[in-house]
Amino acid sequence: MTAGHLWDGRPVAARVRAEVAARAAAFRRQAGRPPGLAAILVGDDPASRLYVANKARACREAGLYSEVHHLPAGTPQAQLVDLVRWLNGRPDIDGILVQWPVPAGIDYEAVLAEIDPGRDVDGFHPVNTGALWRGRPRLVPCTPLGILLLLRAYGISPRGRRAVIAGRSPIVGRPLAGLLLMEDATVTICHSRTPQLEEATRAADILVVAVGRPGLIGAGHVRPGAAVIDVGINRVDGRVTGDVRTAEVARVAAGVTPVPGGVGPMTVAMLLANTVEAARARAEGRPPDSLAAWGRLGEAWS
Amino acid sequence: MTAGHLWDGRPVAARVRAEVAARAAAFRRQAGRPPGLAAILVGDDPASRLYVANKARACREAGLYSEVHHLPAGTPQAQLVDLVRWLNGRPDIDGILVQWPVPAGIDYEAVLAEIDPGRDVDGFHPVNTGALWRGRPRLVPCTPLGILLLLRAYGISPRGRRAVIAGRSPIVGRPLAGLLLMEDATVTICHSRTPQLEEATRAADILVVAVGRPGLIGAGHVRPGAAVIDVGINRVDGRVTGDVRTAEVARVAAGVTPVPGGVGPMTVAMLLANTVEAARARAEGRPPDSLAAWGRLGEAWS
Repeated sequence: MTAGHLWDGRPVAARVRAEVAARAAAFRRQAGRPPGLAAILVGDDPASRLYVANKARACREAGLYSEVHHLPAGTPQAQLVDLVRWLNGRPDIDGILVQWPVPAGIDYEAVLAEIDPGRDVDGFHPVNTGALWRGRPRLVPCTPLGILLLLRAYGISPRGRRAVIAGRSPIVGRPLAGLLLMEDATVTICHSRTPQLEEATRAADILVVAVGRPGLIGAGHVRPGAAVIDVGINRVDGRVTGDVRTAEVARVAAGVTPVPGGVGPMTVAMLLANTVEAARARAEGRPPDSLAAWGRLGEAWS
Repeated sequence: MTAGHLWDGRPVAARVRAEVAARAAAFRRQAGRPPGLAAILVGDDPASRLYVANKARACREAGLYSEVHHLPAGTPQAQLVDLVRWLNGRPDIDGILVQWPVPAGIDYEAVLAEIDPGRDVDGFHPVNTGALWRGRPRLVPCTPLGILLLLRAYGISPRGRRAVIAGRSPIVGRPLAGLLLMEDATVTICHSRTPQLEEATRAADILVVAVGRPGLIGAGHVRPGAAVIDVGINRVDGRVTGDVRTAEVARVAAGVTPVPGGVGPMTVAMLLANTVEAARARAEGRPPDSLAAWGRLGEAWS
């Protein structure tokens, strides 16, 4: 895959999904059943409904079993925990995710902690978070893992590079920092309390923006030749747009991922990849390892 | 406490230990027993023996119960795990630590994972590591917590400051990054694969050096007016020395912690503090929270 100014995530995600489908088929031949994902959706947030529907469709297309538990906004937390525990015990379910955000009144972190860490395909469970930061990663969050593969597919190695991450969420910014650190990048995490964001981002060889403010990053924030990864998903006037002014940044950067069509497709692909790895690991009686299973996949493509 | 060029950790540690002693005495009055710490030492590394002896003595001086299990280097891992499990079930033991490093042949991470997370007073268990990075800290590692209090005692707030950490160990560098991020610093983690370390460290308002290379950091690495925290403990010609050329750096920095007598005493003090917090939390049937219990203590002193 050659590098260009706009780094399309869709062909990279398609290659991951093709490999997922091949591994899922092999698993099915051996185990007599496909890898299975259960998604839990609470309430009626339209974006969350769309995300969950996309994930379920992607599962089916790759030959994975998928089920969606859509519960009303008023579901008591105890019932949610009961559902998670039941799913933990299902031999046909290898991955469980609770779509974030959950309605007020539900403690997301408490529900998350109930998921069997070996089935936590979002990679958000404290045990999986801790494993990453202790240097023994197991199931790694999907968006950071997708970003790593996307970089590799476009020929960018984090090793020895200055990576700057804008945004410190536990979904993207923090786990990505852990991941890029393991990959030998020098990592800086910026956030809303960072004075002079522009000065910090301009130091980056690899700049990842996961803030959620449309058009936050312009050409002035970017070092010439940097790799820019836009994780923002903002809805503005009915259109989806990123945190990066793409056209402007593309003129100075080595490459920039568009929104939509950049990181988003990778996130879904890595969810499937994690589910297949969770299934294989459980069948083989070993802990899952997203990085060993998938982390070097993009290298062969650049 | 006024700021000077040499930031002595001993008076700060003494104030923490005095508060530990007061809280331990109060706990003892209520619970009818003191908070208790069990340390496990495997093999005969002289530095480790000294550390464990120091910790045990500090416990006794603060009115905590302490026991040390010193096992030979050849102890099988299964026996170590058995010991940990037995200690997990002891009502009089609130804190358990396995002194690192352990002899070859023992998987430290596997033993660590057996410690009850509520008794993991080193704060290294994956669940506690994960809790920190998920933004819900429980037991936080002692050295990072001690550094936070030391900074506060000398009037330095991390909020909005550029913190640069040299060293990415799971004992100091990584958890400190998580902690300083929670405290609203912009955090950079450097390591052996960072090209141009000097350029990175010179950007720091707060520079923490935890590499283990004697005299690595000189005046040229330090921004005038920066706070410099030296976590290095190196034995050179029978003397203990840090990673920072202290005298030289003191001339440009706002302050620098000496070695010995800087961070070291804080680490031991915070181990006692974590043990008291673990005891109180278990008695009150809530998760422990090192930061809530101890994190703001230094503020009143500056």
